[in-house]
Amino acid sequence: MKSTRIAIVAFDRFTDIDVFLAWDLFNRVRRDDWQVKIVGTEATHTSVAGLPIPMGAQVEWANEADIVFFASGPGIRALYKDPTYLARFALDPERQLLGSMCSGALLLAALGFLADQTATTYPTTRAELAAMGITVVEEDLVVHGNVATAAGCLAALDLCGWMLERHAGREVRDRVLGAVQPVSKGLAWSGASR
Amino acid sequence: MKSTRIAIVAFDRFTDIDVFLAWDLFNRVRRDDWQVKIVGTEATHTSVAGLPIPMGAQVEWANEADIVFFASGPGIRALYKDPTYLARFALDPERQLLGSMCSGALLLAALGFLADQTATTYPTTRAELAAMGITVVEEDLVVHGNVATAAGCLAALDLCGWMLERHAGREVRDRVLGAVQPVSKGLAWSGASR
Repeated sequence: MKSTRIAIVAFDRFTDIDVFLAWDLFNRVRRDDWQVKIVGTEATHTSVAGLPIPMGAQVEWANEADIVFFASGPGIRALYKDPTYLARFALDPERQLLGSMCSGALLLAALGFLADQTATTYPTTRAELAAMGITVVEEDLVVHGNVATAAGCLAALDLCGWMLERHAGREVRDRVLGAVQPVSKGLAWSGASR
Repeated sequence: MKSTRIAIVAFDRFTDIDVFLAWDLFNRVRRDDWQVKIVGTEATHTSVAGLPIPMGAQVEWANEADIVFFASGPGIRALYKDPTYLARFALDPERQLLGSMCSGALLLAALGFLADQTATTYPTTRAELAAMGITVVEEDLVVHGNVATAAGCLAALDLCGWMLERHAGREVRDRVLGAVQPVSKGLAWSGASR
């Protein structure tokens, strides 16, 4: 059976929660045919809060992934105008789901996947994204076909939920998102498996 | 000026988001006198999803911290009945805020801080906590004086929020929690600083 591959794209000075929330959610699927890797350009990348984490693969692994999730963070400003970095990606929304958190939209735009579309991003990168000719809208999640942008860290729940539903079904999506809700506010004693 | 120290207690097989959400939120305070460390018993601990992260200090650092946040995860079952591990802690709610996420309540209970109180925990550890004589209630956050238990990953927002308000004030709490809300659902274009 072919695996489902999920690539979370990280880099130095990534926003901690925008990598780790997606990492946690995607790993809750817990199926043998489900592979989640954080990918980058070095063996290790360090978050904006100073936490170094090992990469599971280099960014090229994303090119063969089913789902590509661009994280965000101040470090993205050194990358989205770097032709050498951008040239390492060969993505295709015809065969892949592509999504971004917050400033990750700058990479999706630089790679050409937001042209003639609306998109969302974090307040602090709104002007930069608009300067690239993208119509930026004040929404938490914007989906066009197989490309989605999300903004505001907790909107990762909606973005990952959309990706999970598309690749694993509604039931898995509901189980995964339900398992992280607060007890008595979405998660009952009777629920959850971890 | 004396620093405010925050210790996030981790271990092997920690639940990813229960360490990383607190880590992200506490680091958003960004004050020079604010120190956040993930502490453990080894140089590196690996999450339940398989991510190894370096510890900022050994668990004894928590004994001098102002805020001690016990994370959760399957690995806690090997620890909360281990006298050698428990003996490394010398915590005191008279001078420290103590809190737990999900199964972290088992450690707070084993250390004697939940006696004669109500507490909450994740559904899967409810029976174990009750077997220690604790009155377990189906709530997202339970606070008694300087000791709090929270359950369901996203309840970390409330637990960290309580800790932030106590040590940094309401304004900092509101800024930090506001910065991670979804755009248009708690975070406006005009908000946020990262």
